[in-house]
Amino acid sequence: MTVPERLKALRQSMLEGGIDCYIVPTADFHQSEYVGEHFKAREWLTGFTGSAGTAVVTQDQAGLWTDGRYFLAAENQLADSTVELFKMAEPGVPTIEQFIESTLPQGGTLGFDGRSVSMGEGQLYEAVVRKKKGSIVYQHDLIDPIWHDRPTLSEEPAFMLDIKYAGESIESKLARIREKMAEVGANTHLITSLDDSCWLLNIRGNDIDFFPLVLCYSMVTMDRVELFINQDKLTENVQNSLKAVGIVLRPYNEIYEVVKSLSERDVVLVDPDRMNYRLLQSLPESISVVAKMNPSVLFKAMKNPIEIENIKVAQLKDGIAHTKYMYWLKQRVGKEQITEISAAAKLEELRVAQGDFIRQSFAPITAFGEHGAIVHYSPTVDTNLELTEGSLFLSDTGAGFLEGSTDITRTIALGDIPEYMKEHFTLTLKSNLQLSQAIFLYGTNGVNLDILARAPFWNHQLNYNHGTGHGVGYLLNIHEAPTGIRWQYRPSDSHPFEDGMVITNEPGVYIEGSHGVRLENELLVRKGIENDYGQFMYFETITFVPFDLDGIKPEMLTAEEKNWLNDYHQQVYTLIAPSLTVEERDWLKEYTKGIL
Amino acid sequence: MTVPERLKALRQSMLEGGIDCYIVPTADFHQSEYVGEHFKAREWLTGFTGSAGTAVVTQDQAGLWTDGRYFLAAENQLADSTVELFKMAEPGVPTIEQFIESTLPQGGTLGFDGRSVSMGEGQLYEAVVRKKKGSIVYQHDLIDPIWHDRPTLSEEPAFMLDIKYAGESIESKLARIREKMAEVGANTHLITSLDDSCWLLNIRGNDIDFFPLVLCYSMVTMDRVELFINQDKLTENVQNSLKAVGIVLRPYNEIYEVVKSLSERDVVLVDPDRMNYRLLQSLPESISVVAKMNPSVLFKAMKNPIEIENIKVAQLKDGIAHTKYMYWLKQRVGKEQITEISAAAKLEELRVAQGDFIRQSFAPITAFGEHGAIVHYSPTVDTNLELTEGSLFLSDTGAGFLEGSTDITRTIALGDIPEYMKEHFTLTLKSNLQLSQAIFLYGTNGVNLDILARAPFWNHQLNYNHGTGHGVGYLLNIHEAPTGIRWQYRPSDSHPFEDGMVITNEPGVYIEGSHGVRLENELLVRKGIENDYGQFMYFETITFVPFDLDGIKPEMLTAEEKNWLNDYHQQVYTLIAPSLTVEERDWLKEYTKGIL
Repeated sequence: MTVPERLKALRQSMLEGGIDCYIVPTADFHQSEYVGEHFKAREWLTGFTGSAGTAVVTQDQAGLWTDGRYFLAAENQLADSTVELFKMAEPGVPTIEQFIESTLPQGGTLGFDGRSVSMGEGQLYEAVVRKKKGSIVYQHDLIDPIWHDRPTLSEEPAFMLDIKYAGESIESKLARIREKMAEVGANTHLITSLDDSCWLLNIRGNDIDFFPLVLCYSMVTMDRVELFINQDKLTENVQNSLKAVGIVLRPYNEIYEVVKSLSERDVVLVDPDRMNYRLLQSLPESISVVAKMNPSVLFKAMKNPIEIENIKVAQLKDGIAHTKYMYWLKQRVGKEQITEISAAAKLEELRVAQGDFIRQSFAPITAFGEHGAIVHYSPTVDTNLELTEGSLFLSDTGAGFLEGSTDITRTIALGDIPEYMKEHFTLTLKSNLQLSQAIFLYGTNGVNLDILARAPFWNHQLNYNHGTGHGVGYLLNIHEAPTGIRWQYRPSDSHPFEDGMVITNEPGVYIEGSHGVRLENELLVRKGIENDYGQFMYFETITFVPFDLDGIKPEMLTAEEKNWLNDYHQQVYTLIAPSLTVEERDWLKEYTKGIL
Repeated sequence: MTVPERLKALRQSMLEGGIDCYIVPTADFHQSEYVGEHFKAREWLTGFTGSAGTAVVTQDQAGLWTDGRYFLAAENQLADSTVELFKMAEPGVPTIEQFIESTLPQGGTLGFDGRSVSMGEGQLYEAVVRKKKGSIVYQHDLIDPIWHDRPTLSEEPAFMLDIKYAGESIESKLARIREKMAEVGANTHLITSLDDSCWLLNIRGNDIDFFPLVLCYSMVTMDRVELFINQDKLTENVQNSLKAVGIVLRPYNEIYEVVKSLSERDVVLVDPDRMNYRLLQSLPESISVVAKMNPSVLFKAMKNPIEIENIKVAQLKDGIAHTKYMYWLKQRVGKEQITEISAAAKLEELRVAQGDFIRQSFAPITAFGEHGAIVHYSPTVDTNLELTEGSLFLSDTGAGFLEGSTDITRTIALGDIPEYMKEHFTLTLKSNLQLSQAIFLYGTNGVNLDILARAPFWNHQLNYNHGTGHGVGYLLNIHEAPTGIRWQYRPSDSHPFEDGMVITNEPGVYIEGSHGVRLENELLVRKGIENDYGQFMYFETITFVPFDLDGIKPEMLTAEEKNWLNDYHQQVYTLIAPSLTVEERDWLKEYTKGIL
């Protein structure tokens, strides 16, 4: 089927269902950042393959909304599709709500699969429809009947994350969740976000792209836990582990029926950012709803001592893999053909060799030269560049080991590079070092600290158009709420820094058509001294990979910054050298030497 | 009448009025920071003279709530008064709402003068009373009939602020306000905050403590402005100036009646933070209310070019006065008796000599030695210390000239001071300098920048328990919304920095029982270059007073910080020296010399 044929089939279904306007978002039923193949309905319908986008279809028009990262790709992929590109946030381009408002007839019907739309989005659509005195049909997925070769829902097996990795038993986690439920007066807690269920039940799987999560819902009451999951994913051992702690297994989609039987005595805790519209609508009107962030969001962000110990092992493994990778790049570039894709493959091979490697945390960003300036670049066979001397190679990748997930960026000078590239490299290094050395009172959040990383750029009238850091999950989401580092306030990542949180530190600079630099370590939030002024906190850097000395102009660093860098490099050498070959070790010695 | 007699009289009135619990806040009808004598009902009732506090009275109990600044003073002043002190924010101490909830009988009546309670506070009390199925009586001031020698409402004359000071005509300001009213769909705008009315109508007066404001309300419609004011304050000239631009004068209290005649066609713009409870309640239920910040809040914070020119004149005047003051202190201490109070008087005398001086911006904080550690200290005859050599003298004062208001703090080393005091002085200087040099993208607010001032302290596990800066009004409020500098987000002062705003930069450090340091300059927000990254902004320091070199340990400053300081001192000398005597000029030369 071509895209126009698919649109024709959808329009026929819309006519039959009395739907004037139908929305196909990029989402699974759990508001996941990446989705499995079954959920790529928007891609199937429009032909646009980018990771973010929403299609809206009427009898006369089909539109695709996506953001600046994808304008070029979308223009190419939508040519001849009859789907019109709406460039989000560009002047004069209507938002989805504005488009619906202007096209939906008075008293018309808006349709979408309410499982793929968040509670918040659904409420926005409700507001628009109310203005047109129309109605919403959210109970049907119109794509499913017309997408004949649709991939089935993932049936990949799930596995239990051993207590030696998880660090806390299911019982203990449940007790903490129930304490929070009681605090807010709830007796039932619905969890639709995959990472919250997987954290709570110490379970992992392979159902969506990149993150090792399992498609499921859970419902926690004060004396019962029901897990809604395709039981074919669960070996007898896994089933037994779950049943042993009293967890009741039910079919995946049954949750929509089960919640209908909640009674008026029930007070249900749901997270508006982590709840789909249909499940919310399925709750009986008689029950009370407490809308608050899932308690597990904060719990899982504060890593326990065993997780921290493991994460440091994972970081050490990735530090070794990265050091070998840098050595290999520096030695082989110009001597053998290395491309953006083959470099990423080499790094994966080095990670696998470290043992207990599960999967990449996200699509590798291995970007040479001008590609480094494209913040969300990921090489494809069409764009794949060969690495040559005379420019910078930016490598932003992540690994999931059983001991935790990593997210590390290094920018590497290949051969001699121009002075202006070194200036940008050194500014980025200053930025990374300034943030990593922060000392701050408890209560501080990323909105407060961001300028420490930003100032070295702002002082030169430069900037990077992304956050400075994000929380990192433990074999869960690589971008983990509720804390990040950015100067704009966002409720989703502005929680104060708490002991045990793991956050990235990844400033950068991007010069279109030329090069990009980004340097990313992970930081562990730690308690410092407590005195009359309060509880002081600091960051412990837990990533150990050299910053390429070939990119640094020492005269741009203060004495203090040079000391920080030299201390860091000494730690890198001490930790990494024992796992290297003699040649690699000699190289590392040279690339971690103190600078003056 | 003694305090117990006053309470007895109030309780009698409460009985007669069927009121179980009566609240007496510290406030006028305009949510002013300082109030006139007529409005000091809480002070009269309880005997507690502090500037912040709320009294709550039942038949059995009388409580006074105040904050940490005043615990000691309140304890002394409330002894034998039968009024119980409630230390706000101390563990185990109920809030006012909790106290009311626990003492108000089921179905009981809560009373207060609704003019002295803000819309927001009133709504909090409503929520408590609703729980008790009680009611609120807000129409009566029970204090007035029993306070026989109550000062009358101020009848001080008002004056027009000439266009050469205001920089913008009333007509132009009205046009801008009406444009904003139209934007939010309002046809009527009620203004109860004094500074908003005074700014809009280019009028000033002498009705409250410190700020040169006039007691009034205004009501702006699309074709009419009504000013509610005691017309005895207005000379014929002032009346004519106002009438000339079409302003209708009405008696001060008539607004409560006038708003009752608003019709259902009216959409009224009110500011929830700048509106009293009774006026809100006086609006007919049929009208629509748009609750938004008064448009004038942002307009008046962004000083116009003429105001900026004037403010620089005011700063120069105060720079001259301060330099003479520092010279005098350094020369005379130990040789003649100088006290905290006499020092403040000397500074005022030097300011008056500069011409067009109106009044102080707030009670002078002139604090010697250990008094410097009390953040809100202001000397009284009971506490007045003599200045002697060997410690620090902290002077935080403000002046209102026709050319604008100032707020300047210097800490001065008297004689030789210990090294640890110099360390604290130098940290404070670093903090002030780091903030003053900030370069930042448009959109940034004080929550983002605060850490630039805070880091030099946090890096040494020190802190100051107050904001780093606040907006400064032009002969209006000395603490002016909507922008300040503090690390905790507060809606009232977290607006992004806008070109033309004037903000203080006043970090400090306070060592209880020993000394305090605070160094305060004012900053003017300016636009820098605009490029692909956005509009860059920076601060222009507009206060020119030397930082006492006797307090500085140069080895604690970076080369960059020394350059900033030396440049600043060179500017100070250039600007101030021409207005000094030969002796003062020689002294200034020495105290602005470059340090290495």
